[in-house]
Amino acid sequence: MTAVLDIPVQRVQSSKLLQVALENVPFGKHFTDHMLEADYVNGEWTNVVIRPYQPLNFDPSMAALHYGQAIFEGIKAYKDEAGNAYIFRPDENLKRFNLSAARMMMPEVPAELFLDGMRQLIALEKDWIPALPDHSLYIRPFMFATDAILGVKASDTYKFMIILSPTGPYFSVPMKIWVEEHFTRAVAGGVGFSKNAGNYGASMYPTQLAREKGYDQVLWTDAREHRFVQEVGMMNVFFVFGQKVVTPSLEEGTILDGITRKSVLVLLDEMGYQVEERPLAMDEVMEAYAKGELTEVFGAGTAATISMIELLGYKEEKLHFDTQKFVTAPALKKALNDIRQSKVADTHGWMVKI
Amino acid sequence: MTAVLDIPVQRVQSSKLLQVALENVPFGKHFTDHMLEADYVNGEWTNVVIRPYQPLNFDPSMAALHYGQAIFEGIKAYKDEAGNAYIFRPDENLKRFNLSAARMMMPEVPAELFLDGMRQLIALEKDWIPALPDHSLYIRPFMFATDAILGVKASDTYKFMIILSPTGPYFSVPMKIWVEEHFTRAVAGGVGFSKNAGNYGASMYPTQLAREKGYDQVLWTDAREHRFVQEVGMMNVFFVFGQKVVTPSLEEGTILDGITRKSVLVLLDEMGYQVEERPLAMDEVMEAYAKGELTEVFGAGTAATISMIELLGYKEEKLHFDTQKFVTAPALKKALNDIRQSKVADTHGWMVKI
Repeated sequence: MTAVLDIPVQRVQSSKLLQVALENVPFGKHFTDHMLEADYVNGEWTNVVIRPYQPLNFDPSMAALHYGQAIFEGIKAYKDEAGNAYIFRPDENLKRFNLSAARMMMPEVPAELFLDGMRQLIALEKDWIPALPDHSLYIRPFMFATDAILGVKASDTYKFMIILSPTGPYFSVPMKIWVEEHFTRAVAGGVGFSKNAGNYGASMYPTQLAREKGYDQVLWTDAREHRFVQEVGMMNVFFVFGQKVVTPSLEEGTILDGITRKSVLVLLDEMGYQVEERPLAMDEVMEAYAKGELTEVFGAGTAATISMIELLGYKEEKLHFDTQKFVTAPALKKALNDIRQSKVADTHGWMVKI
Repeated sequence: MTAVLDIPVQRVQSSKLLQVALENVPFGKHFTDHMLEADYVNGEWTNVVIRPYQPLNFDPSMAALHYGQAIFEGIKAYKDEAGNAYIFRPDENLKRFNLSAARMMMPEVPAELFLDGMRQLIALEKDWIPALPDHSLYIRPFMFATDAILGVKASDTYKFMIILSPTGPYFSVPMKIWVEEHFTRAVAGGVGFSKNAGNYGASMYPTQLAREKGYDQVLWTDAREHRFVQEVGMMNVFFVFGQKVVTPSLEEGTILDGITRKSVLVLLDEMGYQVEERPLAMDEVMEAYAKGELTEVFGAGTAATISMIELLGYKEEKLHFDTQKFVTAPALKKALNDIRQSKVADTHGWMVKI
């Protein structure tokens, strides 16, 4: 594929790849040999370069560290058995990245920088993509404010980067989830829909409290009444009632418009499920559980893909689910994996070949 | 004053001070010759050092840039006519800093590092404190997460720093404020009370929209009904009804527990005002304005100190205030300035001598 941008490449002298066991990598710990970098100065993107992964210099007054203009995306690249490399729906991540940017008063990143830059970087790092099941190359595009001044205002300068990290399964065992009714993640008019750094830091303390109760993550509820489910830690959440699947809708702007969520909705529809995007109250969840009508609960996200939930803790109640009997979540996981590993035709045009 | 901590000092070869016109400095643009730095590693604070102000190195995967564990404080140091230097209530900032840290799952910073470190740094930079009215040395303690790993979890390592910037008046003219009813800053159970970086980035877009309407800042309202006033941009807000002054209360955890707010409450009480900390609805504000009973509106914050408001834009209404006739706000500003410049006795024990 011909790149629109002619990005200069400074190559490493020798690759670190041989030092990394790709079949057994922890999430986000090892980075590939090169990174993409670009600077936003005087209203335009400049200094676009692919160069060896290395530390950066920053002034102690750098705006991102003080006023939180910092956003990111998470995307995955896969390698099929024939050795072909693909990125999963990066165009959707670009759209969401620029929505995040607008909400945080940051400049738009053009498609040629985001998409062509990503393709060129990954083409260079193709050997870093693990070809194993549930493994992938995690792609982290991010942007942060770089002005060196303490006045509270949108920065005039920014840095956009893409770094890459080979990864295995993120949550490989079924999860225990605490339904959170005290702390809130987002409210209408806020920044819940944007993938800004602050949302994640703000979630860590409530998550820690849930861990101390024996759970892995929290299921956020709405800020007004703590009645409607929102999303789970780093994933969108799906509730299966037999042939009907319900997931919270996006119109309040409080949850992330997940790319895996979006893909799952398409696949569920194709599988013949009745899919509903709408507000879902815990009352309804509890009632269906009591009647035996709530058959599965699972999360969907880029890092975790499809993650089955075996326990929901809600007030004094514990809702147990036998994930061995789950049908929908495993079928979705297989469908997504088959597409990602080119085992079935990519009828949706989701895979972008490197 | 004997310091508890024995902090090694690496001095600059030559000072930048002569290159900076202290009587005419923009806010937060020039930094003094030295900075304080400390690292949190293996559960303890180490590598405490005062060294020349300079850029830092960070890994592109540094946690603060991706997941927003980043908090700060703003404090001011003043010099009186006799040349004595004082810091205004830094112990209160330390308390708030550690409340922010706890909410963002960051480690506590001990008093000796925060307070003694600050005193030693400022003692070294005493010549940088402008001795002019409305001028001061702005003190920025901050902490950010430094782990180089992309898994979403509280970082194991952090950096704490103090940097200093000489400053003049921040908002020197009366302000025009837009009462915001669409966007929200914070909600109960969130991070509104904590001084984390993300809160500021999230406020920039709504503030920009207000600017495009001709206003300087927004007055946030509660997330649930957009009925109760919260705070103004970077300040707490006070409404004066003759001899009664009302400011929003803190119990929801959605607004900042401002040190200037706290000081203003004490001074108002001493001046004989009836002070009320409670929810204040815009209905009540509008009604009092219509009756001519709302005499003043002003903001209070470290950067701006006391900032008079000449216009409140609310829905289709414009509430005008003749700041020339303001009595309370100027009296507070003078009282605070007199304390800060040692023109009156520091009866509250607010000034910490260097």
